[in-house]
Amino acid sequence: MTASTCTVCKTHEAFFRRPYSGEALCKKCFTQSIETKVRTTISHYHMLNFDDHLAVAVSGGKDSLSLLHILSKLRRFRPKTALTAVIVDEGIKGYRDEALNIAAASCKRLEVQQHIVSFKELYGFTLDEMIQEARAKGQTELTACAYCGVLRRRAINLGARQVRADKIATAHTLDDEVQTILMNIFRGDIARLAKEKPITSEVHPLLVRKIKPFCEIPEKESALYAYVKRISFQSTPCPFASQALRNDIRGMLNRVEEQHAGTKFTVFKGVERLRPAIEETVKKENFRTCVECGEPSALDLCKACELLRHVH
Amino acid sequence: MTASTCTVCKTHEAFFRRPYSGEALCKKCFTQSIETKVRTTISHYHMLNFDDHLAVAVSGGKDSLSLLHILSKLRRFRPKTALTAVIVDEGIKGYRDEALNIAAASCKRLEVQQHIVSFKELYGFTLDEMIQEARAKGQTELTACAYCGVLRRRAINLGARQVRADKIATAHTLDDEVQTILMNIFRGDIARLAKEKPITSEVHPLLVRKIKPFCEIPEKESALYAYVKRISFQSTPCPFASQALRNDIRGMLNRVEEQHAGTKFTVFKGVERLRPAIEETVKKENFRTCVECGEPSALDLCKACELLRHVH
Repeated sequence: MTASTCTVCKTHEAFFRRPYSGEALCKKCFTQSIETKVRTTISHYHMLNFDDHLAVAVSGGKDSLSLLHILSKLRRFRPKTALTAVIVDEGIKGYRDEALNIAAASCKRLEVQQHIVSFKELYGFTLDEMIQEARAKGQTELTACAYCGVLRRRAINLGARQVRADKIATAHTLDDEVQTILMNIFRGDIARLAKEKPITSEVHPLLVRKIKPFCEIPEKESALYAYVKRISFQSTPCPFASQALRNDIRGMLNRVEEQHAGTKFTVFKGVERLRPAIEETVKKENFRTCVECGEPSALDLCKACELLRHVH
Repeated sequence: MTASTCTVCKTHEAFFRRPYSGEALCKKCFTQSIETKVRTTISHYHMLNFDDHLAVAVSGGKDSLSLLHILSKLRRFRPKTALTAVIVDEGIKGYRDEALNIAAASCKRLEVQQHIVSFKELYGFTLDEMIQEARAKGQTELTACAYCGVLRRRAINLGARQVRADKIATAHTLDDEVQTILMNIFRGDIARLAKEKPITSEVHPLLVRKIKPFCEIPEKESALYAYVKRISFQSTPCPFASQALRNDIRGMLNRVEEQHAGTKFTVFKGVERLRPAIEETVKKENFRTCVECGEPSALDLCKACELLRHVH
C-alpha cells in the first residue's frame, strides 16, 4: 500500500486499508474502531447488564488477549461491570505452560483477577494423560480435540460458576463464526446452527450464558489489534491441532473474501436474519441433568461423562 | 478398485463403488439405480401430474442428455406424459452448433420432439453480437454469462410456452444445487435460497413451473450414466465460461465430499428441512408484468429488457 492519510482523523499516516469499507486507518483510529465495534456489538445483542460479573475465557492466544484488553477498558464506561479471566489448564506439555504465563502477565498488567481451572483437578487426568489412557484402553477413534472440546467447554462453565460470574465471554471472531456456520451446514446440524449465536439462550440454571463480543471482528483485525497494542500472545499452535474440515473452509472463505470483500459479514448477517426461523424449525432441546455428574446435559449421560468413561 | 461382485444383483462384476452408500454396482444395477432415483425424486416432490406435457431444457451436455434419456424411458410408466426437448441456440460461434447437432441426434434416437428457440429470433441478436454491441456501447462491466443467464432462462420459458408445456425439466444435479445454495449463502441472498427448490412455486401464469429431477443425482453419476449408456454429448466448455466463485466452491465441496462421503446430500437435505422457515422469512416476491415486454418480472422493467437496453 502506498502511504496515505487516515480517512477518519485525516491527520496521521494510514497503516491499514479495510477492504470491506474502503477506509484507510492510522493505528489510533484503527484500535478505536475495534473498541467501538465491540461496544456496539455488546449493545446490539444485549450481551451485558450494567452490573454483570463477566468471566472471560482466556487461552493466551491473540484473540482472547485482545478481547481481555478491550473488555478491561470497557470498565471505564461500565463501572459496575466486574471481570475475571477464566483460564483452562488442559495439561498439554510444552504448550500450555507458556500460555499460562502469558495470560497471567496480561491479567496483572490489566488488573484483572484470574482464575485457573485444570483438567487434572476437575477430571483427575491432564489431557495428555487422558489421551494416553484412552489409547491404552483401545479407544483410538476420537482425536484429542474431541475430548478437549467437550471438556474445555465444561471446565470454562465450571470455572465461571466458581467465581459466580453471570456470563462468559469467549473470543470467537467473525471468521470462527462463519467457519462454524459452514461446518454446521456441511454436517446438516440445524440444531447447532440455531444454537451458536452471539448470546446463548438461557437453557439451564447451571449453564452460564455465553457472549461473543468479537463476533463481528474479522480474525485478521483481532490479530492486528494485538500487534498495534503490543499485546504478547502465544503463537505456537496446539500440538494436537487437527481440524481438516475447518482449515479447508477457512482457506476457501479467505479466497472468496479476497475477491468479494464483505462476504464473511454477509454470511454472518444472513444467518442472523434467518435465525428466528431456524430456531422455530428446531425442536427446543430439552435440557436435563446428567445422572452421573449432575451437570446440564441433552441426554441422560452428559458428553463429558461419556468421554471420561474411556479413561476411568 | 479391485474387481468385486455387484452388491445388488450379486452376479455381475462391479465397476463403481458408491462412497456414500457403500454399494458396489455393476453397470446394469447402476443405471437402474439412477433411473429409480429419478422416479423417486419426481414422486417425492410431486413434480409431475400424470398427463403433464413436459419441456426438457436440453443444452447438449452430459447432464441434460442423461436426463432426456431417463425421462424418455419414463413414458413407459406414464403413457400420458408428453415430452418436448427445448433447445436454446444462443448463437455462440464454434460452440453451440456442435451441441445442436448432438441434441438433435439424441432427440431422433429417443423419439422426442425438439423445439429450438434462438436468441437471434427472440432478441434480434446472437449472444456473440450482443456482447460485441454492448462492449461497443461502453458496457464493459457485465460478463457474457450475466447476459446469457438471464436471456437463456427467458428463452426456455418462452420455448416451453410455445409448445404449450405444463412444466420445464432442467438437469441441475445435486452438485449444481449445493453449489448454488452455498453461493446464495455467500451473497446473503435469502430470497433466492428460498426460491431455488426442486419444484418452483406457481408465481405467475406466464412463468412455466420448473422441476429438477436430477437434484438428488451427484454430477459424477450423471456423467457415469451418460458413459455407460454411450450417450454422446458435448464436452467442450463454453468459450465464455467464467464462474470463479462457483469453481472455488465446487473444488472445496469435492474435497469435503472426498473426506466425508454424503456431505452434498447432507447440505441439500438440511436446506430442504429449513425451507419452510426460510420461505416464511422472505417476503413473498410480488410478481408483476414488465412494462416493456409483458413478461413476468419482479420490477417494473424485467431483467431481460434491462440487459437488452445495453444493446438496442
